[in-house]
Amino acid sequence: MTSPSLAAPLVPQSLADAQALDAADPLRQARAQFSLAEGVIYLDGHSLGPPTHASLSRIAQGAGHDWRLRLIRSWNEAGWIDLPARMGARLARIIGVAPQDVIVCDSVSVNLFKLAAAALADAPHKRLLVEEAEFPTDQYVADGLAALTGAQRVRLEPGAEEAALHRGGVMIKSIVHYRTGAVADVARWEAMARDHGTQLIWDLSHAAGVLDLQLERWGASLATGCGYKYLNGGPGAPAFVYVRGDRAARLRSPIQGWFGHADAFAFESGYRAAEGVGRFAAGTPPILSCLSLEGALDAFDGVSLAAAEAKARALGTLWLHRAETLGLTIGSPRDPQRRGGHVTILHPDGYAVIQALIAEGVIGDFRAPDAMRFGFSPLYLSFEEVWRAFDLFEAVLRSERYRDPRFAARAKVT
Amino acid sequence: MTSPSLAAPLVPQSLADAQALDAADPLRQARAQFSLAEGVIYLDGHSLGPPTHASLSRIAQGAGHDWRLRLIRSWNEAGWIDLPARMGARLARIIGVAPQDVIVCDSVSVNLFKLAAAALADAPHKRLLVEEAEFPTDQYVADGLAALTGAQRVRLEPGAEEAALHRGGVMIKSIVHYRTGAVADVARWEAMARDHGTQLIWDLSHAAGVLDLQLERWGASLATGCGYKYLNGGPGAPAFVYVRGDRAARLRSPIQGWFGHADAFAFESGYRAAEGVGRFAAGTPPILSCLSLEGALDAFDGVSLAAAEAKARALGTLWLHRAETLGLTIGSPRDPQRRGGHVTILHPDGYAVIQALIAEGVIGDFRAPDAMRFGFSPLYLSFEEVWRAFDLFEAVLRSERYRDPRFAARAKVT
Repeated sequence: MTSPSLAAPLVPQSLADAQALDAADPLRQARAQFSLAEGVIYLDGHSLGPPTHASLSRIAQGAGHDWRLRLIRSWNEAGWIDLPARMGARLARIIGVAPQDVIVCDSVSVNLFKLAAAALADAPHKRLLVEEAEFPTDQYVADGLAALTGAQRVRLEPGAEEAALHRGGVMIKSIVHYRTGAVADVARWEAMARDHGTQLIWDLSHAAGVLDLQLERWGASLATGCGYKYLNGGPGAPAFVYVRGDRAARLRSPIQGWFGHADAFAFESGYRAAEGVGRFAAGTPPILSCLSLEGALDAFDGVSLAAAEAKARALGTLWLHRAETLGLTIGSPRDPQRRGGHVTILHPDGYAVIQALIAEGVIGDFRAPDAMRFGFSPLYLSFEEVWRAFDLFEAVLRSERYRDPRFAARAKVT
Repeated sequence: MTSPSLAAPLVPQSLADAQALDAADPLRQARAQFSLAEGVIYLDGHSLGPPTHASLSRIAQGAGHDWRLRLIRSWNEAGWIDLPARMGARLARIIGVAPQDVIVCDSVSVNLFKLAAAALADAPHKRLLVEEAEFPTDQYVADGLAALTGAQRVRLEPGAEEAALHRGGVMIKSIVHYRTGAVADVARWEAMARDHGTQLIWDLSHAAGVLDLQLERWGASLATGCGYKYLNGGPGAPAFVYVRGDRAARLRSPIQGWFGHADAFAFESGYRAAEGVGRFAAGTPPILSCLSLEGALDAFDGVSLAAAEAKARALGTLWLHRAETLGLTIGSPRDPQRRGGHVTILHPDGYAVIQALIAEGVIGDFRAPDAMRFGFSPLYLSFEEVWRAFDLFEAVLRSERYRDPRFAARAKVT
């Protein structure tokens, strides 16, 4: 196999094919920025990305110098005060929006609440629409907001979302489905929603950093996403909020914290919302976790998100192709254009299989009742690694060694 | 001066007196746990506490080992999943409540919102009461919640709070006032509030870690506090929530995130609130910032909060006594029993004075328009240091070198 093109990827049929794809990989330099564990093939970057060298050094500098030696002065000297907007501007390129329209703050759950409350207040129909198979926190947040405001809460069966758009209101929706990896056509959804007067809030958690998102061009105006998955910001890294510039003035964050004030250090009694998306900040951000995320963003500098998307999908195709050959049950779209960066294989013993595979050094994850998820973060994985990981996966399945009782005991976090 | 007693402290009149107080200080061992900058006397622990050795090593371990090498497995192996409750149990002793009634989550701003919304839903009178001189975020949060829910927002003039209790509703109040250091008699306020059917929510930001709080005994049922001031948890360290056990079942967090679910990793479609205060958790916590806070709590192990309170007040008395001798304008209660851990001196050139003092290695802070604040964190400060810091303060004032134009330029964060 010669000159493989990632734009129309050939599916590697052998280790040699995989190696050839690596040789032609435009992203092959990015791996050197990561501090990867030896002996591990990490297919769980859709859940918690690994650290970059820059993250580790930003954390060490932030704790050991900026905090320890410069203390309170680092809010000015080290620019802690501007971190949320500074990171926002870098995230903006990754999700395809204007630099001033993104800010880092809080968690996805809290940000979904803020955006949904703000959108609801601005919507003619006080109705919250979320599909029942959506990521649970998206549903729970809508439940809680409905209870608080008296808005109508509509729980949609899978497949019923499109028809529900005509009802009007606010819909929370993931771009990439956490369980299946299925990807939504944002431009199409936005066009439909506009026709029906429904406001979409996008959850980018499993999408940001792995897909070539063009949110502004696609007509999206409100979104939040996760810092610790494909963005590799570290465990529980803060999330971010996107509000398109022309929308911000009409929207009011329900959580009016001092960091969302136009002049926080004036210590005014009355609230004046900051311009633009800045009004969605609330309390003091967790600086050490922010610095980790800031370091992680370095790995995206100069990286084409189109290349990242193409590579992630090609790696997923490799996995699904081999899984199909084994007769496994595929839980993700086969068409790579309809997928995010992870794929799902369904198996009744999925939990034990994942544990047995981890024992072999290949880390994926499991979502009850039967979904084994494998994520293909394109910045640090190679085709060769993924090929070898599947060899181990196949060996675990064929040997049935996942039936060993030590793989059955469920941990708190799966 | 011999055998000074901190319970009825003598005011040191000389460096030798201060040294004698240090020799008798029951907390003098605690300082060794901190990683303090050389050449700095740090009187800003009420704004951002300095790191302990344990914090720095927990951060390094958390980033360099748990995240880097163990990756996603650390949620179970390193107990990340239990960090919020584990830290809560340790914070509970510090604020005088039951171990299971505290959880670490989000920021003070977000937690005030959650508690106020929950209390409001449970209150017969839909009214939010906050005094106009309260810390701004407490006021802004109440404004935002009122706008969201239609509750009445009552802005109280300073001094009008007590009379307003009869109106019923929910009142947010700091135990220690951020500007003056004045401390509220919680037991008395709770008794009055109970008589009038008003629910108090306590902001512990400038109180936790420096006062001998006995919230449960005093009848308090709802509170939130800051991790980065006297608790030394690191810049923007996460905050905590206290909900007394018997209240939790009736209270519903408005932000129903997956970390507040009874079984987050069951990925259920419907929300079931966790038992107790755990329901006030929302999204994934920022683990690196949490680890820093966890390390900081080690410094409180075995420390008597009564001794901490007595020492902080004695240091404050030293400062105020010398300030009075100089004829400076005191902005804090003179009675140490009515003060928290920081004191305020008012000066028209306060900003420049603080900058000039920082240039001498003594760090305090400034709150517009004229308040210079000096905090006396009792775990790492000595009487001798504070005595010497005041010498430098006096020298800056007498020399008027604060009038140098380089001290006039306002930074973003003051």
